[in-house]
Amino acid sequence: MAKQDMSEAELDARHAEKMKKKKAARDKIMATKTIEKGLLIVHTGKGKGKSTAGFGMIFRALGHGMKVAVVQFVKGRIETGERMALEKFSDQVTIRRMGEGFTWETQNRQRDIAAARQAWETAKELISSREHSIVLLDELNIVLRYDYVPIGEVVDFLRDEKPDDVHVVITGRNAKDELIEIADLVTEMTQIKHPFRSGVKPQIGIEY
Amino acid sequence: MAKQDMSEAELDARHAEKMKKKKAARDKIMATKTIEKGLLIVHTGKGKGKSTAGFGMIFRALGHGMKVAVVQFVKGRIETGERMALEKFSDQVTIRRMGEGFTWETQNRQRDIAAARQAWETAKELISSREHSIVLLDELNIVLRYDYVPIGEVVDFLRDEKPDDVHVVITGRNAKDELIEIADLVTEMTQIKHPFRSGVKPQIGIEY
Repeated sequence: MAKQDMSEAELDARHAEKMKKKKAARDKIMATKTIEKGLLIVHTGKGKGKSTAGFGMIFRALGHGMKVAVVQFVKGRIETGERMALEKFSDQVTIRRMGEGFTWETQNRQRDIAAARQAWETAKELISSREHSIVLLDELNIVLRYDYVPIGEVVDFLRDEKPDDVHVVITGRNAKDELIEIADLVTEMTQIKHPFRSGVKPQIGIEY
Repeated sequence: MAKQDMSEAELDARHAEKMKKKKAARDKIMATKTIEKGLLIVHTGKGKGKSTAGFGMIFRALGHGMKVAVVQFVKGRIETGERMALEKFSDQVTIRRMGEGFTWETQNRQRDIAAARQAWETAKELISSREHSIVLLDELNIVLRYDYVPIGEVVDFLRDEKPDDVHVVITGRNAKDELIEIADLVTEMTQIKHPFRSGVKPQIGIEY
């Protein structure tokens, strides 16, 4: 019988049956998922939401009472909303800020290289310490793209030295293939529509 | 001169020049962005990060001291990390929870329809009240996909009745074309790699 010819009661019955099957299928699949491990997560792509979702994970973990760390590789953005919100959880969160804004703001390559190198050393220490359940390396991909820190060095550390019980989240557009290769979870944020195109300016709570 | 033949000093000088041009171009573009308005933002796609980025925006706004509201259309997920983190900002946040988990858990279509309808009425009230700078309609797309609330009704309200100074963020896969059409900012989260495929189970701080 076609859906449009069904009575509400028939639709309800069909729905219950369909959902029951879906649930059974899902339960069966999830029963096979038994491994627990610290994941390497990458948010990349040209769309919005890469860092925002990274910070969303950080806040979710804070809600659970977990300890987290954030290393900011490029943006000065953390000064604003996220930073003020993170202050409510000051006993659970470690923040290390490097760089002084977007690279096209500084125009000083040697200073950027030094800052990136220092941020990466800090990131390694925070991850290795195992004191934080999640370490967010915000905008690391930009640093890797400019080769301010060699991708080989980053891949070697994350693959061979990252403790098994620490999640690492890396954000930034243009994630390198070598990083995607060793990652457990990769999401690409794709821009479908952006308000700047209609002349809308960056707004509080939205862009910063 | 090819990049590999340049000295460090030459690379630095080229970098400074390039970044200066980039900054000038960016400043020029941004100067044309003068409109301030409440945006309609949609996070869709099959990848992770849709709700997480939505909550990331909520926490960023909370950091700024803004008032926000969250209406949860389907998931029972908010019970966990996000909810506990939001409790730190209880004077700034209004949470309305509807539904009792994924639809394939409940198997009761009439109850789902009633819950969705009630959640949508609540959403309209929260948006119209203008008491919240951002209203997150988490997983509204799932409700629209099942036609539990008619898309035409939702589009009419958001296009014609939403106050100009309220941002609305809608999440969930399979966003309807009619919604994308009227949205200001649409990001699609695309799944590139997912750890469930390697037998990894949902973990605290990552999935919930």
